[in-house]
Amino acid sequence: MQLYFTPLSCSMATRICLYEAGAEASFVEVDTKSKRTPDGADYHAINRLGQVPCLRTDDGAVLSENAAILQYVARRFPDAQLAPRDDAGLARLQQWLCFIGTELHKALFMPLFDTEAPQEAKRYALEKGEARFALLDAHLAGREYLLDAFSAADAYLVTVLNWTAVTPIDLKRWPAVKSYHERLRARPSVAKAMAEELVSYQAQQARHQAA
Amino acid sequence: MQLYFTPLSCSMATRICLYEAGAEASFVEVDTKSKRTPDGADYHAINRLGQVPCLRTDDGAVLSENAAILQYVARRFPDAQLAPRDDAGLARLQQWLCFIGTELHKALFMPLFDTEAPQEAKRYALEKGEARFALLDAHLAGREYLLDAFSAADAYLVTVLNWTAVTPIDLKRWPAVKSYHERLRARPSVAKAMAEELVSYQAQQARHQAA
Repeated sequence: MQLYFTPLSCSMATRICLYEAGAEASFVEVDTKSKRTPDGADYHAINRLGQVPCLRTDDGAVLSENAAILQYVARRFPDAQLAPRDDAGLARLQQWLCFIGTELHKALFMPLFDTEAPQEAKRYALEKGEARFALLDAHLAGREYLLDAFSAADAYLVTVLNWTAVTPIDLKRWPAVKSYHERLRARPSVAKAMAEELVSYQAQQARHQAA
Repeated sequence: MQLYFTPLSCSMATRICLYEAGAEASFVEVDTKSKRTPDGADYHAINRLGQVPCLRTDDGAVLSENAAILQYVARRFPDAQLAPRDDAGLARLQQWLCFIGTELHKALFMPLFDTEAPQEAKRYALEKGEARFALLDAHLAGREYLLDAFSAADAYLVTVLNWTAVTPIDLKRWPAVKSYHERLRARPSVAKAMAEELVSYQAQQARHQAA
């Protein structure tokens, strides 16, 4: 199993899940500017839109889209309990994966991070984000995780919440989200993934500045 | 099972799946402006963000988020074969549900339809949409469905493609997408859902104009 990733991006959620599962996996870094892998190959041949993550499964298939990859890893390593096994729990997992992917990742953070996005698009995204964080705060109050136990949805959410550090979003306004974020960052699989990807991120930044 | 819907919105995908399954279900219309149901109740009590669809399951739970609801219906009615049963097929279904939800529905159509979205946000969304339609066109060339057979992902995609009619997007530019759209619209479950929701849509428009 091979994960195509960009450091500190949404692909880190899959790395966290692979660490949770103690899975054998290799990690291939995609340069955010050149969209090339370390062997010089054009990543667009793997993913037409140049998006990470992609997962090459052990039978050679290439799977894209975060929610699909996270659930694939959860099914592949059932002992890690990254997804509930009961039908109601699975529905809730899919609900949260979809919420994080559409309402937070795509609708809020993508316009904020896209250097080509107009300022008005960024302001609009921030405004729409308010109600999303309020919903999240209400759900997380008194809870340790999104579901009853740690799941792939938490791996995705902590990854996305990390991004607030480089946006005008201040998590202090949503105390339950803030304490959830701090708690999840301290989880060993998350801390390990973050520390490693920070090193890769800084190296990539240094390469870009040198170029 | 009770589906909260707004006519011709993304909730129509679930209606199509319920028709495919011959499921016993009731449909509760949510007014797009007042966010109230026909009994006068505030829909925000069902869904905090006021978003459709929501599905009230037979045991009374309320499930939100389109990808989660579509997969719930697929699991609940396995004979309708709305989702592949094999692991690789399920991963592909989840990949397409995620792509449609994030890349098309949320990143492209939501800014186009939101009357409060600034013009620049709409232009930005349209530009980003180009590569998404090209990807879809390449995938659908020579194929009847997104997967090997009709699935919940097709119910979602045909619903989203219908929206192009009221945008500057011209499907003629992507012939495989255009012929897929026409083929899917002719499918009995889709045609029935569209005809019924068009009537509801026109009635809602008339109520809004009279108010």
